[in-house]
Amino acid sequence: MTINEVIDQRLGAPVAPSHGTLRPLGLHEVTLRPGFWHRRQEVNRDNSLAHIERWLTRAGWLGNFSSAPSERQGREFSDSEIYKYLEAVAWQLGHTPDPDLEARYHAIVAQVAAAQQPDGYVNTNFGRPGQEPRYSDLEWGHELYCYGHLIQAAVARARTHGADQLVEVAIRAADHLCAVFGPDGIPSVCGHAEIEPALVELYRVTGNRTYLDQAALFISRRGNQVLSDIEFGRAYFQDDIPVESASILRGHAVRAVYLAAGAVDVAVETGDDTLLDAVVRQWRATVARRTYITGGIGSRHQDEAFGEDFVLPPDRAYSETCAGVGSVMLAWRLLLADGDPAYADLIERTLFNVVATSPSDDGTRFFYTNTLHQRVLGTEPPADQLVPRAASTLRAPWFSVSCCPTNVARTFAGLAAYIATSDDSGVQIHQYAAASVKVGDVALEIETDYPVSGRVVVRIVESPSSPWTLTLRVPHWATEATVDGSPVSPGAARIRRRFAPGDTVVLDLAVRPRLTAPDARIDAVRGCAVIERGPVVYCAESVDLPPGVTVDALRLDATAGLTDLSDGVGVSCHITASADSPWPYGAARSEAVVADGVPVTLRPYHDWASRGPSTMRVWLPLA
Amino acid sequence: MTINEVIDQRLGAPVAPSHGTLRPLGLHEVTLRPGFWHRRQEVNRDNSLAHIERWLTRAGWLGNFSSAPSERQGREFSDSEIYKYLEAVAWQLGHTPDPDLEARYHAIVAQVAAAQQPDGYVNTNFGRPGQEPRYSDLEWGHELYCYGHLIQAAVARARTHGADQLVEVAIRAADHLCAVFGPDGIPSVCGHAEIEPALVELYRVTGNRTYLDQAALFISRRGNQVLSDIEFGRAYFQDDIPVESASILRGHAVRAVYLAAGAVDVAVETGDDTLLDAVVRQWRATVARRTYITGGIGSRHQDEAFGEDFVLPPDRAYSETCAGVGSVMLAWRLLLADGDPAYADLIERTLFNVVATSPSDDGTRFFYTNTLHQRVLGTEPPADQLVPRAASTLRAPWFSVSCCPTNVARTFAGLAAYIATSDDSGVQIHQYAAASVKVGDVALEIETDYPVSGRVVVRIVESPSSPWTLTLRVPHWATEATVDGSPVSPGAARIRRRFAPGDTVVLDLAVRPRLTAPDARIDAVRGCAVIERGPVVYCAESVDLPPGVTVDALRLDATAGLTDLSDGVGVSCHITASADSPWPYGAARSEAVVADGVPVTLRPYHDWASRGPSTMRVWLPLA
Repeated sequence: MTINEVIDQRLGAPVAPSHGTLRPLGLHEVTLRPGFWHRRQEVNRDNSLAHIERWLTRAGWLGNFSSAPSERQGREFSDSEIYKYLEAVAWQLGHTPDPDLEARYHAIVAQVAAAQQPDGYVNTNFGRPGQEPRYSDLEWGHELYCYGHLIQAAVARARTHGADQLVEVAIRAADHLCAVFGPDGIPSVCGHAEIEPALVELYRVTGNRTYLDQAALFISRRGNQVLSDIEFGRAYFQDDIPVESASILRGHAVRAVYLAAGAVDVAVETGDDTLLDAVVRQWRATVARRTYITGGIGSRHQDEAFGEDFVLPPDRAYSETCAGVGSVMLAWRLLLADGDPAYADLIERTLFNVVATSPSDDGTRFFYTNTLHQRVLGTEPPADQLVPRAASTLRAPWFSVSCCPTNVARTFAGLAAYIATSDDSGVQIHQYAAASVKVGDVALEIETDYPVSGRVVVRIVESPSSPWTLTLRVPHWATEATVDGSPVSPGAARIRRRFAPGDTVVLDLAVRPRLTAPDARIDAVRGCAVIERGPVVYCAESVDLPPGVTVDALRLDATAGLTDLSDGVGVSCHITASADSPWPYGAARSEAVVADGVPVTLRPYHDWASRGPSTMRVWLPLA
Repeated sequence: MTINEVIDQRLGAPVAPSHGTLRPLGLHEVTLRPGFWHRRQEVNRDNSLAHIERWLTRAGWLGNFSSAPSERQGREFSDSEIYKYLEAVAWQLGHTPDPDLEARYHAIVAQVAAAQQPDGYVNTNFGRPGQEPRYSDLEWGHELYCYGHLIQAAVARARTHGADQLVEVAIRAADHLCAVFGPDGIPSVCGHAEIEPALVELYRVTGNRTYLDQAALFISRRGNQVLSDIEFGRAYFQDDIPVESASILRGHAVRAVYLAAGAVDVAVETGDDTLLDAVVRQWRATVARRTYITGGIGSRHQDEAFGEDFVLPPDRAYSETCAGVGSVMLAWRLLLADGDPAYADLIERTLFNVVATSPSDDGTRFFYTNTLHQRVLGTEPPADQLVPRAASTLRAPWFSVSCCPTNVARTFAGLAAYIATSDDSGVQIHQYAAASVKVGDVALEIETDYPVSGRVVVRIVESPSSPWTLTLRVPHWATEATVDGSPVSPGAARIRRRFAPGDTVVLDLAVRPRLTAPDARIDAVRGCAVIERGPVVYCAESVDLPPGVTVDALRLDATAGLTDLSDGVGVSCHITASADSPWPYGAARSEAVVADGVPVTLRPYHDWASRGPSTMRVWLPLA
């Protein structure tokens, strides 16, 4: 059987489990139509992809595949950015042909292929003269992590196109690593998880069970102290406790969610319910105790890690864009596995408030970290320099560690796949965006300006004559939602009947501003509230305040109500003034209120800092 | 003139400005008597010094001075720990002769001297075969920083003993570096300030103006981007803005206070009031906006740096012990320069709540960082391993970066010098501890069990017959203090009269528990209060709570009053219970109170974690 015979399914979906409650749809089955997400996908295609390729070239990371070892540029994981870019391009080409982009894709793939060693090894940072030996630094070397992204790119290509040179390169690399790290090989794992979900996906594409077995082996090894200890402790790369034994996600946030995604993939393909249950338990605890209001995860700058339970300071919230992407990857796998709408709730929250926050309007600048409280005005990062990953308070064109732009690009390029699923009973709509869905003999048009309003019209275009079920997610915050005028509860609204072309189902999520309070155990935001509207978190920005008023002077008057404005949410605030004391602690004092009833317009957090340097806060102290 | 002719003053004081409002006393002029600080000085002498020398030997850092370059152990700055240890030993020998310790001192000095190059260069990490060249990494290499500590050790020796081999080594090193970094030399500075105050002190010891000029040159160069940019930005090593132009301390906290201390030294010796005023302004702003209730500074783990104004999260407060030591160095210099009791207030707070917190009761384990909120139980660090600097939640015997133990040791060994000063009008007592003071024709006994009580008896033992002024600092929190029964206000209480031997002056600082609230701009502790008693900050520790109650369940009932107990402060708390929600944000909820009126004993923060693993919080949410 040739590769193409196996992978000729062209499923077109980022994740394609062979079992599970829900079946994913491919990019040929769902198409975004103009709206919030479509615009971002267009900007991604029109601007971000070229921007990324320009920087990969300019920073020398692409050139590493053909240059001498002594001339190598970038960090040890820079190869992965080329692979993530190739994955983005593969998904993009999978729904929108583009001969020029196709040609650029082939040129890069040829460069990568030329760098591959005869035994399948490919990495520009190890193993060549003057470099450290292969696999000599599993803790930090990222070699298997890079393979993971190479394989994910190849999976994207295989599922949207079929086998080609990239797929062949990835399969050779996978065969090599399975030989080297197999049951009789190096008994360890990579310091950064990613190879695990990639190998399961390659198994799904090729049917080669070796890849699944290797992924399962990696999952079972980790947590048994197979890596050396490091300053941050082994929890940093989740080598402290076996996946099955852990009760919550911990350590480096991106590593944690990538690993959990791989564990779900292994559990689903091997039928290991104990492993799946363990990840579900960890996910629930993490959402309940270690997740920002935005869906962002990872509060620490030092090690890009989760803090302890309820340690979610808005100041310098790390909330890395890539951790948001990884959280979507994990929640999507769990959603496919067991169908709980809570997973789609978190995906929605994370997409609107982390992933959408990262890129600038024009898709050429990005946030790496996503703080929830910016106290001082930032300065515009230079357009022509690498910016340290987390130093910027404004979006930057590129970073010395530039994982986020390519992660955003691959997510946006394949975003349509997260809108809907199917099962034997019918079709489930998880995310609300204007879109066309065609699955089997069902075709739908989803018409909505969500999240501007909460009105979603599902128009039946084609339908079998027998009854089937249209399932609509009702987000957890939508406590006054209706379907065709009848109240529905948060969760899943199931409409089962005979549908005919032209029928419509109208979901109204009653999107309006609301005031949200934190769990009392989140010390950092005690006495504060946040304003949300639908899935969107709002914030106060200094550019919207009267002259001389800072965001830190605002005290929200929760009794005054919230006003739904065309450009934001109107609130009423007291303005406080504080003079420095020689010592800032003493007998209790009340704050001086210099004005009250001051109207302030809050704006979507995902737009913050798009009008130049600004101070900002999401959590507002209550008056 | 020989060195010994110049330095035979044997002043015995850690800092000895040639000008200033107050004159420091030397270790031959002030002797601690049994009490809070005397006990710590005894433990330092009996246990800590030997503990430190054992670890310096065991970790190989001492051996670096005689071993081959290829066998070098430790971080690039490990030489400095040997020098800080020598400084501690010098102060210790300066008030308490000890032939065995004296012999160990000479043995180490001989090792250092043997490693010095003919041109005066001495550093075990650079310049030898197989190592990077001298001064090839000013940003991170710490060569001048190490010289600084070498010089400080030599200054301690010169002022307590006179010239010896260590003093000669330090002078050769200073002459070398002044030649290399002088007006026509390398136009840069060290990434870690420390050489600046050291050179001024060496000038004060030797009278060699070259050292002062070099220190002034380093101060004037820094802030002009003479170092390369780094990921943390140039503010990390204060190379962002000239010292004279900055409005507040920023960047790496230890670097910031060491640099400011050097700037004060330069300003005082050169009569540069503009520079002095700049540091005073920065100090005031830093105290008002960037200092923890404990006096600790530096809130960030990632870069051991100050946060923005009012970013003082108790969670993972970094509050490095060394930054506390450096803050005392800075405040002491400012106190000598202008006499404001506010400097002594901060010194007291920092000594009781940061420096005293670091070592264990027996002086063989240390905190590197000093968090104000410990949420999870720690595990006892291994007795025989290096511990990463900040990973421990319990005191550890030694760290891979082990700057704090030697900094505590040198501070405790010379602590008596911070008790009192003199000027033309009389004697000033700044810190309250049982002690004997003999300066000129005045001799005093200070009798007190402070901080157990606030009663301080100053007994005149010798006095001239003419009137003079006894000045007693009244701490800013002592709003009900009396002197001989008459109320006095916080600040300086001046008693001017003819004193006769046998006279007493009784200061009563009315030490009793009090409730302290934060500046409303410190978001991280909104709605919380801390209990203080005299200069001591108190905390709740899980080992003092009823079974099953965590520190995070406590809500302080501020209406119930505070009880002064023999072993702590009694408060009344509500105990709350919280169940996880699937999503921890939503409509406002009240907390479930499962018990109220529960008596809880708070204990001094400096003792926390001395009874095994414990969770702890300083700031208690108000009921």
